[in-house]
Amino acid sequence: MRISGERFMVNYCLAAENEKAAYAKARDICLEQTVEFPEELIAAEFIRDAVVGRIESFESEAGGTYRTTISYAVETAADELTQLLNVIFGNISIKPGISVRELSLPESLLHKFRGPRFGRLGLRERLEILNRPLLHTAIKPMGLTAADLAHLAYQCALGGIDIIKDDHGLTNQSFAPFEERVSRCAEAVHKANQETGGKSIYVANVTAGADEAVRRAKLAKAAGAGGLLVAPALVGLDVMRALAEDDTIGLPIISHPAFQGSYVINGDSGISHYALFGQITRLAGADAVIYPNFGGRFSFSRAECLEIARGTQVEMGHIKPIFPCPGGGMSLDKVADMQKVYGNEVIFLIGGGLFRQGPDLVENSHYFRNLAESFALG
Amino acid sequence: MRISGERFMVNYCLAAENEKAAYAKARDICLEQTVEFPEELIAAEFIRDAVVGRIESFESEAGGTYRTTISYAVETAADELTQLLNVIFGNISIKPGISVRELSLPESLLHKFRGPRFGRLGLRERLEILNRPLLHTAIKPMGLTAADLAHLAYQCALGGIDIIKDDHGLTNQSFAPFEERVSRCAEAVHKANQETGGKSIYVANVTAGADEAVRRAKLAKAAGAGGLLVAPALVGLDVMRALAEDDTIGLPIISHPAFQGSYVINGDSGISHYALFGQITRLAGADAVIYPNFGGRFSFSRAECLEIARGTQVEMGHIKPIFPCPGGGMSLDKVADMQKVYGNEVIFLIGGGLFRQGPDLVENSHYFRNLAESFALG
Repeated sequence: MRISGERFMVNYCLAAENEKAAYAKARDICLEQTVEFPEELIAAEFIRDAVVGRIESFESEAGGTYRTTISYAVETAADELTQLLNVIFGNISIKPGISVRELSLPESLLHKFRGPRFGRLGLRERLEILNRPLLHTAIKPMGLTAADLAHLAYQCALGGIDIIKDDHGLTNQSFAPFEERVSRCAEAVHKANQETGGKSIYVANVTAGADEAVRRAKLAKAAGAGGLLVAPALVGLDVMRALAEDDTIGLPIISHPAFQGSYVINGDSGISHYALFGQITRLAGADAVIYPNFGGRFSFSRAECLEIARGTQVEMGHIKPIFPCPGGGMSLDKVADMQKVYGNEVIFLIGGGLFRQGPDLVENSHYFRNLAESFALG
Repeated sequence: MRISGERFMVNYCLAAENEKAAYAKARDICLEQTVEFPEELIAAEFIRDAVVGRIESFESEAGGTYRTTISYAVETAADELTQLLNVIFGNISIKPGISVRELSLPESLLHKFRGPRFGRLGLRERLEILNRPLLHTAIKPMGLTAADLAHLAYQCALGGIDIIKDDHGLTNQSFAPFEERVSRCAEAVHKANQETGGKSIYVANVTAGADEAVRRAKLAKAAGAGGLLVAPALVGLDVMRALAEDDTIGLPIISHPAFQGSYVINGDSGISHYALFGQITRLAGADAVIYPNFGGRFSFSRAECLEIARGTQVEMGHIKPIFPCPGGGMSLDKVADMQKVYGNEVIFLIGGGLFRQGPDLVENSHYFRNLAESFALG
């Protein structure tokens, strides 16, 4: 009946009063996420057997919660990222006490997705940095003119920052309209590269409506930008995927977590840091994923951040490992500790903190760069 | 300095240990959502005065939480739904203890959005039903063939259901591929209408990647579908807006909450039912919004559902009121109570419950229709 037998697995954590209630919840997920129909009224045997989700494992864990792995026929996802996410967590996002912990997707399904175009290695090759953490900053604040922002980008590139992005709130405001900003900033970074012999890139924020994001990505490419910043929760995860897979664009993509916080596990609901910022972001084609580091002005714990780092590199068939990019209130005095935690397979994002270090942005950038060089492997 | 002085307001609820901490949180939101930059380093006076958010009110409330209204310059939103959402709740979605309660948008900003094309009145006119609640069901389960699903749609239309939609999990699975399903179902509902003289519509689920959603919407229109089902959290809220504003499509849009649950207030984080399913869904162009009714298999309370209903009709300039569409485990024996709660300005969604009523789907549909007729206003 048009069913291959191939299945993908989702590991869920369930909060429930007791084992019986938790098992009932797992059974409910099997129906809710597929047929959404009273089981006793399903006439066709193959729908009951193959289309309805299947409990592959179920166990209680310390703390009074339950873990279950549920498998779904790959055909339920219809080769679409949107529908895959719908099966994983669509309706049950509205039910209490259910969180997604981990995905396990068979090759047959992974092959429907191209994943990150560059990944860790591709980005390193493009930036010609093979043995140290990468450096990343943002130009801001909103309200500056395009010329002002370009001057900041120039200074950062001159100081040796590898990746210089628009702040994620810079879209097409009248203060610094997209086209003017992107042209000026890309040009400024190229100019600095010519002076230093460096390979810094300017990353343009193309977060916008879907068509407009594609249009802006093409403008950014034409203007000489070296990458794209996309906030997938604002534009749609699948729009990020489409940008990543578009061969006429072909630029590295950095994922920004704006508006995505609601998806991260909160209490006993949501999607794990590991699956959301790691596995799902990779399926959706980003080459690096920004998230708030522990110890900054956001709320992720050290353990959660390490889970993200693990999710960026866990084996997923041909889907490349990507860079974790911790940021969010980081300062230069935290870099050494961050390197101890993440090692060298990381992009350090310092935005406002780079400006705080001292009055000269070029010097501050140099300082940041020298720190990173000190971690360079043999 | 290119600032009109027009501002939009967001009312937030803050969880904090004490008033001082809550006020600091409000101040932090003003910066985080706009400049994301150390305040003391902002050189330009106009950025500090006009671009940074402004606390318009702040008060403690019963229960140890705090309410604050923060205003932002309309220019920060750059006339884009994505950036408007970013200013409202982008980065702070990742910070604990902040929830969005209510939006207040000036005419100058509302006029950047077309909003629902039909709204309540437009949908009533199209369906020629002026004085009773509308009836809505879903064809399912996944795994049936397009012919099977079309037969269900035919029976529901014959029985007098006004709106017959694809289950939201039906996209383009091999069991019932999109084009075949939509053609057959639209045809089946037209056939039933010819027999009954009714005006039932078939609503095609076009939830997919952005380009594909538009392509499917055009196919659905050409095939004779009478509306579109869109899950905005899967495709992107702005993609729904684009579908609603596309004059070459011009069909009523029904918003489905799949994958949207994470945004709804959970503990002290998220977006209120009122703002998410009411105000934001209207800005994004839906004519009706599906949500899980209280007393069904989901977790919304009666008060939260009433908040949604209030959000669907609160004055928002030219942005039309839309239909609340409570569903999610509803059954025919609950309809009378639902009418008491919602009145007649509502769409009742009964999916699986319609099949449960008895063996004959046409009869079940008739029964549902007769119930609704009994509420008709003189």
